[in-house]
Amino acid sequence: MSLFEKHQALIEKAVQAIAQRGYWSPFAEMPSPKAYGESAPAAGRAAFESYLGQRFELDQPGQSDWISPEVSPYGAPLGVSYPVCEAQALIDAAQAAMPGWQRLGARERVGLCAQAITELNARSFEIAHAVMLTTGQAWMMAFQAGGPHAQDRALEALAYAWQEQSRVPEQALWEKPQGKNAPIRMRKHFEIVGRGVALVIGCGTFPTWNTYPGLFAALATGNAVIVKPHPHAVLPAAITVRILRQLLAAQGQDPNLVSLCVPASPAATQSLATHPAVRSIDFTGGNAFGRWLLQHCAQAQVYAELAGLNHVLIDSTSAYQAMLDNLAFTLCLYSGQMCTTSQALLVPRGGIDTDQGPKSLEQVQTDLAAAIDRLLAKPEVACAVLGAIQSDETLARIAQAQSGQWGRVVRASQPLSHPEFPQARVHTPVLLACDAADESAYMQERFGPIAFVVSVPDTEAAVRLSERMVHEHGALTVGVYSTRQEVLHAVTEASWRAKVALSINLTGSVYVNQSAAYSDYHGTGGNPAANASYADSAFVANRFRVVQRRYHVE
Amino acid sequence: MSLFEKHQALIEKAVQAIAQRGYWSPFAEMPSPKAYGESAPAAGRAAFESYLGQRFELDQPGQSDWISPEVSPYGAPLGVSYPVCEAQALIDAAQAAMPGWQRLGARERVGLCAQAITELNARSFEIAHAVMLTTGQAWMMAFQAGGPHAQDRALEALAYAWQEQSRVPEQALWEKPQGKNAPIRMRKHFEIVGRGVALVIGCGTFPTWNTYPGLFAALATGNAVIVKPHPHAVLPAAITVRILRQLLAAQGQDPNLVSLCVPASPAATQSLATHPAVRSIDFTGGNAFGRWLLQHCAQAQVYAELAGLNHVLIDSTSAYQAMLDNLAFTLCLYSGQMCTTSQALLVPRGGIDTDQGPKSLEQVQTDLAAAIDRLLAKPEVACAVLGAIQSDETLARIAQAQSGQWGRVVRASQPLSHPEFPQARVHTPVLLACDAADESAYMQERFGPIAFVVSVPDTEAAVRLSERMVHEHGALTVGVYSTRQEVLHAVTEASWRAKVALSINLTGSVYVNQSAAYSDYHGTGGNPAANASYADSAFVANRFRVVQRRYHVE
Repeated sequence: MSLFEKHQALIEKAVQAIAQRGYWSPFAEMPSPKAYGESAPAAGRAAFESYLGQRFELDQPGQSDWISPEVSPYGAPLGVSYPVCEAQALIDAAQAAMPGWQRLGARERVGLCAQAITELNARSFEIAHAVMLTTGQAWMMAFQAGGPHAQDRALEALAYAWQEQSRVPEQALWEKPQGKNAPIRMRKHFEIVGRGVALVIGCGTFPTWNTYPGLFAALATGNAVIVKPHPHAVLPAAITVRILRQLLAAQGQDPNLVSLCVPASPAATQSLATHPAVRSIDFTGGNAFGRWLLQHCAQAQVYAELAGLNHVLIDSTSAYQAMLDNLAFTLCLYSGQMCTTSQALLVPRGGIDTDQGPKSLEQVQTDLAAAIDRLLAKPEVACAVLGAIQSDETLARIAQAQSGQWGRVVRASQPLSHPEFPQARVHTPVLLACDAADESAYMQERFGPIAFVVSVPDTEAAVRLSERMVHEHGALTVGVYSTRQEVLHAVTEASWRAKVALSINLTGSVYVNQSAAYSDYHGTGGNPAANASYADSAFVANRFRVVQRRYHVE
Repeated sequence: MSLFEKHQALIEKAVQAIAQRGYWSPFAEMPSPKAYGESAPAAGRAAFESYLGQRFELDQPGQSDWISPEVSPYGAPLGVSYPVCEAQALIDAAQAAMPGWQRLGARERVGLCAQAITELNARSFEIAHAVMLTTGQAWMMAFQAGGPHAQDRALEALAYAWQEQSRVPEQALWEKPQGKNAPIRMRKHFEIVGRGVALVIGCGTFPTWNTYPGLFAALATGNAVIVKPHPHAVLPAAITVRILRQLLAAQGQDPNLVSLCVPASPAATQSLATHPAVRSIDFTGGNAFGRWLLQHCAQAQVYAELAGLNHVLIDSTSAYQAMLDNLAFTLCLYSGQMCTTSQALLVPRGGIDTDQGPKSLEQVQTDLAAAIDRLLAKPEVACAVLGAIQSDETLARIAQAQSGQWGRVVRASQPLSHPEFPQARVHTPVLLACDAADESAYMQERFGPIAFVVSVPDTEAAVRLSERMVHEHGALTVGVYSTRQEVLHAVTEASWRAKVALSINLTGSVYVNQSAAYSDYHGTGGNPAANASYADSAFVANRFRVVQRRYHVE
């Protein structure tokens, strides 16, 4: 039985899921021994621990050195060394691996990718430890976002890749009538050919969730892939690449189709990204390097997710406390280090109407701060929600926010000590208050646990400000709270113009920063925060080309 | 009955056709009164003649002047004046028209586009006269390529646009199980939003065939379109735009959704193309402006068909005479002014094996020249095949080729007088002979009736040269003649690496320069001749974005 046949039901269900966009997942999101096997938790931890302080062998070409660039936000020693390989050697090997991968055909490429995803799923505990320790995510998020949710995004991209490729027939008989004469008959063959070597550049916060869509979209459409992880979050990518290389080899494919590149310098990454053989780049990260890639890598299709200014408009609510709790959770989850975390809350100067009567702007500020305090009251809960601060830059940014230079400090950030990792840099969010006119404060991304309550003249002004923020600076998420249909209507229309996903009156256990595979499009691809979406047809359709040949037949 | 319902069967057949890629067309390709109505030929001519010497009113915003830039290659006076409209006014009006078009929804947008295409079909005679007189195409080609074949390409792009949009559900219920608790339920809405104002820049040789795919792909996916025709071939685009504007108005849509822009200067075109509101550009034309667009219009998706070096490898044949006749027709058709015309014929220095015995290189040259002479022996046939020379630049290029500076003249170009148009610039092809080493001669596009027999050391060298030509300079078409399977195999594999469409042993009435809608992909989008293909999913999928909103439901 071929791998496609083995996974055909899974693939078909995924294709159905992206068409219906309801809830679906083949993967258990809870780290439960019942779902993953009784031995899975211990085996996963042991596998993770076996990497620590060791060289991570990948047997890749062009290796010149070892590098150990990771720094754990938990302060835990990792000490894993990764091969430094010459970019040209990786590219040459990738190119050499592509013809065999092309010959395999879309169907079996997709089958092999599906097999890889299920193998990744089985390794979710191991990968979760790697994600947690490198990114600073708390355990539950590391398991879910790093494991099954990332695998869902992989399978979603794979479903799109299969759908688009499966619609190209392998061959056709072209038979043109000629009146009373015999028809002209031609046989035509249509070969799906990958665009060329793909480079997938990961980020430091979600090293699998943001890497898998590009990786599997590129791979399934016939391309070799070089994975370039963030230097602080290499291990999750390295484990993934090793699983793929082993599977490829076991299936008679050239393992160099997928390789890991841990460059010794940013210049090495730039030279790799601009290499003429690199024909697509998937990137998640900051604006500076993202814009550089878009400007300098004209030889490649660039799929970029950059920074944005996510925000929430608060006009009125019929569930004041639930709204505050929902917002507090969003601001605290992974210390606001999600690309979908709201940074600005736009509140009318004159306050808002609620089920608890009118609330002044100041009251909203105070109540939100209190909601955060309440959420983080128990240290063990706080650590499980906040995780740790991923980078020194974010740490410095928290200090800058505390100084009051960007607005009045409504709620100050405090360091917390982590029960398991004494060196972990755990800090609660800082909540600032400023006026809509103080654009220098809030009108740029302040990545991390830093949020602004921005006072606006009124809701109409908030809608205009929101639209402008998305148009000019981009956003992955916008939220709105209102009991008035005309406000929801205006915000909806603004979201269409600005092209941003909108969450309305979230008061339950779904948060504006969450995006569910097969259902929520992550990024619209239509505003400056991202030029592509996870996932849609556009995310896969241009990763392959169709090369035809034709000849007369009798 | 809505327009979608009216055309549903047509649209579904087109969707089926692009999946099966056999022969199909809903439009009669012969200019026959039986198919188009007894009065159609005369009515079409009368409609065309009614434009001559007149102002072509379009009632567009921002009009400041009239311009009459066309020069007929047939030397016929046209004297049609077109509105010069301020680009900003067209863009403002286009943007204002988009929300209503978005609200109409994908289904009825596609229905209206299908209606437009059938109306264009009914006007094929009128459009054919406009195409013939502005481009220099002979009548039959002007009718077929300018009429039904262009409409086929329009319908093909529409089928892809419908297919991709129809897979995005309007809404979904997302219901996530919560064990013993009630599931979390969210309603999600998915709005298809056009990327933004589309600019479609036409060429001087195929003002409808190369314009309709981008026009209808952009329109159907929710975008306003500004059509910028080549200054020498405005009328076919103007008629098309008027038909669309009238249909839009009749259907209650803002006619400014589609407008014609005839800029007073190249600078005006550049400023339009770089306008931040222009979010997609379709371009067919030369490398200089094409590369400029790709470099300077980072705000837009650019779909570009540029110059290339089409060529044919001749290794051996079992039908020598038929091969020569087939090649001769390709070189003569529309005086080689097709983007798919072969420019170089790669022939081994030692000659080729044929069904008539071995033929030396010199013999092949002479026999090909004779085949051209034979095809053009009768003046009325010659004029019906050659048409007229579209531009002064091509005329000058013929003279330059005749000078011998690019190679020995095997067959000289002669001027012919046209029976109907005494001022027509009709010139037979010039055939040159040079060596593979003379790259300065043949290794750039020599647009027009100029072809090279390039002598190569052997077939293996021809395959290498072919692959390099496509890699470095691009090509839309490659042909090969060989009786040896290993040669066909090697050329096929080279075509995959270089990503170019291959025609094998064409000896009948299909020519390497012909590309049939719904079946042949025109351009692979994978080599420098074009970064997109007519048509595939990638041609439409990124012209729209999906904007979602979600909220809790009980």
